Amino acid sequence: MTHSKTVIYRGKIIELCLENVTLPNGALAEFEIVHHPGGAAVVALDRENQVCLLRQYRHATGGWLWELPAGKLDPGEPPLATAQRELEEEAGLRAARWEPLGKIISSPGVFTEVVHLFLARALSSVPANTEAHEVLEVHWVPFTEALARAQEGEITDAKTLVGLFRAGAVASQS
Amino acid sequence: MTHSKTVIYRGKIIELCLENVTLPNGALAEFEIVHHPGGAAVVALDRENQVCLLRQYRHATGGWLWELPAGKLDPGEPPLATAQRELEEEAGLRAARWEPLGKIISSPGVFTEVVHLFLARALSSVPANTEAHEVLEVHWVPFTEALARAQEGEITDAKTLVGLFRAGAVASQS
Repeated sequence: MTHSKTVIYRGKIIELCLENVTLPNGALAEFEIVHHPGGAAVVALDRENQVCLLRQYRHATGGWLWELPAGKLDPGEPPLATAQRELEEEAGLRAARWEPLGKIISSPGVFTEVVHLFLARALSSVPANTEAHEVLEVHWVPFTEALARAQEGEITDAKTLVGLFRAGAVASQS
Repeated sequence: MTHSKTVIYRGKIIELCLENVTLPNGALAEFEIVHHPGGAAVVALDRENQVCLLRQYRHATGGWLWELPAGKLDPGEPPLATAQRELEEEAGLRAARWEPLGKIISSPGVFTEVVHLFLARALSSVPANTEAHEVLEVHWVPFTEALARAQEGEITDAKTLVGLFRAGAVASQS
């Protein structure tokens, strides 16, 4: 049960709060909670079983990462609509077949973010439309090679790893 | 390149900064960055190939999650030492065999957290020592069942998912 919530900072993406709560064991605790609107990420597979991976510069972690096309939910936006929008904007792709791959909680100790994952197939090209603060290249990687990179540690982004691992099991059944 | 960094909040766990940077494409951008010390998480497998999973209450996400034993790095602490400490404190376990399972970046848009993953085997019991704000139960789940729960979406915590998926490939080889 939350007794009090103090907003420390309300930004463009996140809101930081100090929250005083009673836990299920009866203990009182104060938590630093970073509220985030949540996001959606897409495993897009083409007819040759290649997956679309972005090589993306991330200031927060100081370098380039391999990531799925992904983005934040706009207010009230269903996760599938976010996934479709981001796949168009970041990768220049539209997909005719969509399947859910569940969701992940990024870091439940302090961060409320939930990322919804999708598998997208039957792809066609549309104009991409990245924003200036998005520094990324679009790559196509054989899916089995992407899974090997996920296993061996070359891929480190959490949503991308879970998306690839779950897609591996789903795609092999259909 | 970072031009300026304004600390908005310095807390017990996180530090929130506004950072003005030049990106590799020459664009200027301001980011809200949540700095976190990073963490370590452990896939602990017993002789019967059961994995230790915690059922843990998380205020940030409003409910109970299945998670690996895990915790934050103390300042200067090597990730393996964190993993060993948390496995003792949260699960009451010590392990004689340790293997790295790589790392994950939890949410690279705004959050600096990196979680180091380990596989631990040859387990023995020690006294657990959880803190009052940690509300958790220790469970043992057959590893194949845990993998199925990861695939089907009953497990949603990112570090736990990647730890289980990577351990599945490593453990089947040794």
